[in-house]
Amino acid sequence: MDDDMEGGSLGPYQERPRTFPNMRSKPYTPLIFRLLMRINSRVLLVLLLIGLGALFYIGASTSPIIVFVYSVCIISFLVSIYLTKWVLSKDEGPPEMVQISEAIRDGAEGFFRTQYGTISKMAVLLGLVILIIYLLRSTSPQQESSGLGRATTAYITVASFLLGALCSGIAGYVGMWVSVRANVRVSSAARRSAREALQIAVRAGGFSALVVVGMAVLGIAILYSTFYVWLGVDSTGAMKVTDLPLLLVGYGFGASFVALFAQLGGGIYTKAADVGADLVGKVEQGIPEDDPRNPAVIADLVGDNVGDCAARGADLFESIAAEIISAMILGGTMARRCKIEDPSGFILFPLVVHSFDLVISSVGIFSIRNTRESGAIGALEDPMAILQKGYSVTILLAVVTFGLSTRWMLYTEQAPSAWLNFALCGLVGIITAYLFVWITKYYTDYKHEPVRTLALASSTGHGTNIIAGVSLGLESTALPVLVISVSIISAYWLGQTSGLVDESGSPTGGLFGTAVATMGMLSTAAYVLTMDMFGPIADNAGGIVEMSQQPESVREITDVLDAVGNTTKATTKGFAIGSAALASFLLFSAYMDEVGSFAHVQFHQVDIAIPEVFIGGLLGSMLIFLFSAWACAAVGRTAQEVVTEVRRQFIERPGIMDYKEKPDYSRCVSIVASASLREMIKPGALAIISPIVVGIVFRVLGYYTGQPLLGAKVVASMLMFATVSGILMALFLNTSGGAWDNAKKYIETGALGGKGSECHKAAITGDTVGDPFKDTAGPSLHVLIKMLATITLVMAPVFL
Amino acid sequence: MDDDMEGGSLGPYQERPRTFPNMRSKPYTPLIFRLLMRINSRVLLVLLLIGLGALFYIGASTSPIIVFVYSVCIISFLVSIYLTKWVLSKDEGPPEMVQISEAIRDGAEGFFRTQYGTISKMAVLLGLVILIIYLLRSTSPQQESSGLGRATTAYITVASFLLGALCSGIAGYVGMWVSVRANVRVSSAARRSAREALQIAVRAGGFSALVVVGMAVLGIAILYSTFYVWLGVDSTGAMKVTDLPLLLVGYGFGASFVALFAQLGGGIYTKAADVGADLVGKVEQGIPEDDPRNPAVIADLVGDNVGDCAARGADLFESIAAEIISAMILGGTMARRCKIEDPSGFILFPLVVHSFDLVISSVGIFSIRNTRESGAIGALEDPMAILQKGYSVTILLAVVTFGLSTRWMLYTEQAPSAWLNFALCGLVGIITAYLFVWITKYYTDYKHEPVRTLALASSTGHGTNIIAGVSLGLESTALPVLVISVSIISAYWLGQTSGLVDESGSPTGGLFGTAVATMGMLSTAAYVLTMDMFGPIADNAGGIVEMSQQPESVREITDVLDAVGNTTKATTKGFAIGSAALASFLLFSAYMDEVGSFAHVQFHQVDIAIPEVFIGGLLGSMLIFLFSAWACAAVGRTAQEVVTEVRRQFIERPGIMDYKEKPDYSRCVSIVASASLREMIKPGALAIISPIVVGIVFRVLGYYTGQPLLGAKVVASMLMFATVSGILMALFLNTSGGAWDNAKKYIETGALGGKGSECHKAAITGDTVGDPFKDTAGPSLHVLIKMLATITLVMAPVFL
Repeated sequence: MDDDMEGGSLGPYQERPRTFPNMRSKPYTPLIFRLLMRINSRVLLVLLLIGLGALFYIGASTSPIIVFVYSVCIISFLVSIYLTKWVLSKDEGPPEMVQISEAIRDGAEGFFRTQYGTISKMAVLLGLVILIIYLLRSTSPQQESSGLGRATTAYITVASFLLGALCSGIAGYVGMWVSVRANVRVSSAARRSAREALQIAVRAGGFSALVVVGMAVLGIAILYSTFYVWLGVDSTGAMKVTDLPLLLVGYGFGASFVALFAQLGGGIYTKAADVGADLVGKVEQGIPEDDPRNPAVIADLVGDNVGDCAARGADLFESIAAEIISAMILGGTMARRCKIEDPSGFILFPLVVHSFDLVISSVGIFSIRNTRESGAIGALEDPMAILQKGYSVTILLAVVTFGLSTRWMLYTEQAPSAWLNFALCGLVGIITAYLFVWITKYYTDYKHEPVRTLALASSTGHGTNIIAGVSLGLESTALPVLVISVSIISAYWLGQTSGLVDESGSPTGGLFGTAVATMGMLSTAAYVLTMDMFGPIADNAGGIVEMSQQPESVREITDVLDAVGNTTKATTKGFAIGSAALASFLLFSAYMDEVGSFAHVQFHQVDIAIPEVFIGGLLGSMLIFLFSAWACAAVGRTAQEVVTEVRRQFIERPGIMDYKEKPDYSRCVSIVASASLREMIKPGALAIISPIVVGIVFRVLGYYTGQPLLGAKVVASMLMFATVSGILMALFLNTSGGAWDNAKKYIETGALGGKGSECHKAAITGDTVGDPFKDTAGPSLHVLIKMLATITLVMAPVFL
Repeated sequence: MDDDMEGGSLGPYQERPRTFPNMRSKPYTPLIFRLLMRINSRVLLVLLLIGLGALFYIGASTSPIIVFVYSVCIISFLVSIYLTKWVLSKDEGPPEMVQISEAIRDGAEGFFRTQYGTISKMAVLLGLVILIIYLLRSTSPQQESSGLGRATTAYITVASFLLGALCSGIAGYVGMWVSVRANVRVSSAARRSAREALQIAVRAGGFSALVVVGMAVLGIAILYSTFYVWLGVDSTGAMKVTDLPLLLVGYGFGASFVALFAQLGGGIYTKAADVGADLVGKVEQGIPEDDPRNPAVIADLVGDNVGDCAARGADLFESIAAEIISAMILGGTMARRCKIEDPSGFILFPLVVHSFDLVISSVGIFSIRNTRESGAIGALEDPMAILQKGYSVTILLAVVTFGLSTRWMLYTEQAPSAWLNFALCGLVGIITAYLFVWITKYYTDYKHEPVRTLALASSTGHGTNIIAGVSLGLESTALPVLVISVSIISAYWLGQTSGLVDESGSPTGGLFGTAVATMGMLSTAAYVLTMDMFGPIADNAGGIVEMSQQPESVREITDVLDAVGNTTKATTKGFAIGSAALASFLLFSAYMDEVGSFAHVQFHQVDIAIPEVFIGGLLGSMLIFLFSAWACAAVGRTAQEVVTEVRRQFIERPGIMDYKEKPDYSRCVSIVASASLREMIKPGALAIISPIVVGIVFRVLGYYTGQPLLGAKVVASMLMFATVSGILMALFLNTSGGAWDNAKKYIETGALGGKGSECHKAAITGDTVGDPFKDTAGPSLHVLIKMLATITLVMAPVFL
């Protein structure tokens, strides 16, 4: 409970109070861009071409599939450059909007710099720890036979870890970079046309979605082909291609490590600012949301960018990376067991699926167009319907391309109809994604029963509102769990009956079937991420419109977009947790493969009837509860600091309420920034250190009580119980938070007394409670689940 | 989501509005008492003596240990008769108190009758289902060898089930019977002396504690010895004594079945009335708690009796029964494996421990005496200190008697020092109980940091109060889990190293070690239950004092007692969940033994790396979330009905606020009663039906996919995950609820603005939310965990 952890290092940030909105600091450009800009553009072009040439050369030496993946990624980068040029070509509106936007940009970039500074220091430290562990560990038999020494493995793992961390950081930066530029352009467009505003927000979201997904795919493809060529894979005496994916786990862990802290820090920032601003602004002073008189309003708007855009970018990057790597490991293991002649199809399948994802999602994004320029505001179609139409296009294409990919990649003469079974697995995944989105909507949209009941409960007071929201959230875990159960079992059995058999003739395709289902679920990831990014951009645009005091008609447009953004954000969370649930099962298996390979024994069972293993499960579930507690408490504590500061400003500057004095926005920004950086350490450290400690403690215990592999078994059980509890807890937190938010919005439409009634006040309390649930603890749990899996993969040698 | 379930059958209750407090209905005496009273007392005495004689004859034919157990139970019944005579000899105070007390008694007994009428119908129905299942199932090899036919097993199981249900019902009735009589006597005594009031409340609680524990022990002892003599156990060709305990599982299931519905119905009743009364009374009208002008006040006071006294009686009865039976099963299994000559010591050990429990708890209860009759009110010692002193006496005696019992019962020549290891296991259990109580106090008592932080969070509003409370509750799961982990592992290893080995020479005492630790934890159960029962009696006495408008000095005394009661209630919950956590591990093992015995194969592993088994775990955890959701929602919905009714009365009878018109208390009582009976069905049915459905579905799936025992394995994993999630969820709900309650109380002492401040209002919201958490969902989860274990034990044949 040491609240002052890491507080000391934040001194400079606190001592340098920011002075926007009128005196913005010098615009910040990352060092790498500055270096690049200094180089002559022709030299740059030549360098780029040489790099590309080398890339394609290595790719071509590996497999034609890699060349295909490279090409698609590079094309999608070109598309994303087009998208960003298109967005940036739009006007930024009147100077008052630009001023506000610049203040937001400065706050966001400042926080991002400090946050990623802290994260990168921790990453380097952890990289050193991994290096030491790997230098001291024993090597696996495969590695020994391929002559891969201890030191080589260590450097490979650490390099992948650092590359993963770097890419994850860039993914986050890109998300934020575009959103702080698009928000003001959306506000400005909202003065002209609703559809144009929608289009800008979608294309800005699309830009970062394509970059994030493309980078995840490209990064893994580059690592894979580099290792392939460097280690001379598949030549006699060298490593087998089916063992290659195990070398990539460091990349996944690096990505999830950064994503965890990005999500925690950003999540705490955004919700502490939001809750703090609301508690004093809306509840005590009765001024509307995003009112310029509220000193915490800029901090709140900054939060949308660092919490939702940057963090979600890193989160999805990490999801895709972890899922691709674990599916590659499983594909490799299966190909080896079944003695498939050319295993590269099974190993590289995930990269192809996500390449197609880039293509079809681009089509989806471009399907949202500005053709019918109605101009009039009233003529706006329901934006949700427009986004849904794009989603339907993408899903239909996904079904087609997924079928094609399975036929292309997974056809083998040993089991000629196996690809059809796997195509059906993919379909299971796509249907699961669809059902998850539908269930989330049912529980969080005020068109349906649950949120209306919740709103009704607000009419009997704050207490019944909270009770109803908590029980709604707890109840909402049931249907998703049933869906996941059915889809895991059916995908497993489709795989098992695919006809692929191992040497002894027993079917082995089950796990790979669930892997394919996971890929099916994630096969529209780029479009889903686009819809998700749309939310905070629209939210920010609304804030800028409100703060720059635009006419009512403009606000109406941004309000509609904001409401749609809320729904898409909620459904994306359903999607994220569904994919985490499916992927977790792959990651367990990958972990067990890894342990088995290092320990030189079969490791296929996690028997929870053994007391220590059961205890591991208990500790795993407890980890989820404790992590959620600390994440929520961090928001609560930081919000209290904001409340105190805002109250102080209102008292010391009584002119604020009459627009006579200007609030000190920057103080709130720096208070929230330093507090959230301080608060992210405790839960983050818990998540990283506890599996390692548990593994080592039980390894020692196992040694003294004569139980081999006890550490590894206990960690496996910890991982599985944590995943189950994490899925349920995240569903509970996300859904209850979303439902409270929308119950409030429902009342604001005029139901049950409307704005300002007692019922509305009770609903605001619910919304406040839901904020850290749905935007801090919930999304952090998604990352935590996958990070636990990757950390145990990387740290496996310690537990043996 | 059918809210009208069972609503139809409640017609008569709703149509017959009660007319107290001035016109009470005819006092109700159960049929059995009426029949008994009609018989001549001499005839009765003769019958009783004959019965006792038969009992002791059967006991003596079984084992001298059984005779010892019988004697202790009968003596403790005599002690409890003395206690109740002593309590009833106290005066009931002035007529206004008597009137209120009679209204409470009528409400409580009316609800109890209707509730147990519903429960008994369901129990009979379930008994029929069990009968059919057992008539259709295959018998175990042991049973076959002992000539125990299918039909005999079926009748034995159903008879045990119904006996368990009946005893559980009586336990609940006894708890309520004494509390509705003691409450007014405590109020009356509070006018004279604080210490006398305390003593009456303690002795009333002690009465029901002794009856509940004594009945659990005696019931099992009678069943055991009856079966022993009837089946001619241990004679050649007959059943072995080590298999006998498996026949008792029906008793445990009957007990937990009734306890589940008693806790659910009572919990919903008490908290719906409480929340409803508070929301309108305290929050909207600003009148104090238990004010006679509040129409829901009688319903609230009735709730304390049916929710806390009756339900907790049934709950602890069930805990002790389940724990004794599972420990007997494990003792029997171990004795068989180790080929111990006289296994009866290991099997009957739990009965002896609880016999000593009755003796030492009686000593503890009588140690709270009225000797230093100070008379003056100010001279009251801290009642908490007095109760703690009694607890210390009991614990010290428990350590001594536990050591003696292990030496007496568990000494075997095969491993001469085993008893010492087991004595240490008992010590582990006692220490665990102590630590659990301490941790609960730390998180819920306002003398410590967490509740003070929570109170501080209330000063920034309703929202931050709820966020802080939720995170406090989630965080509070960590330490208990660590304690449980250490105690399970250490008890297991103490048992493993006890020197007891099976035929192949491998150590086997581990599980029995954890069983002994559980018994150690529960070795002071009767005293703990006394402290727990003390709470609602004091609470009720306070209500009567408030309603009958006694002078301030009298209220002060009952307020102090009430506050102490709150703390003891919270700590008892910690104790209950700790014992459930320890006992769960025994119940798993008993289940696996049972399945192995029926399936004629070894069943020692629950491998969660198998997809279906993992899914079973996911479903188990989900069950906990859904059950909690429905329990909380039930309270919320019922409370809303109360709020509407109370608001209606205040509007239609404006004279109520000036004491000119009398509120219609009885309408509130009947609304809460019928609503809570309706609402208890859904979560209760979920808990009972879902493990059966899961078991059957996966049995069928296993049949078609060629996986033997799949149903049983999936149910085992469901059970284990549900237990882990249930422990964590119950800890979260109980602790956050207790902390919110005490944060409010802390503010009411004058801190942070005191009563009536904005901070206090926010704290009341927290308290309202905490009510269903800590008194409905939380305690129901304790019962659920154990009921899941007993239902899977009884239903095991269905899953094979």
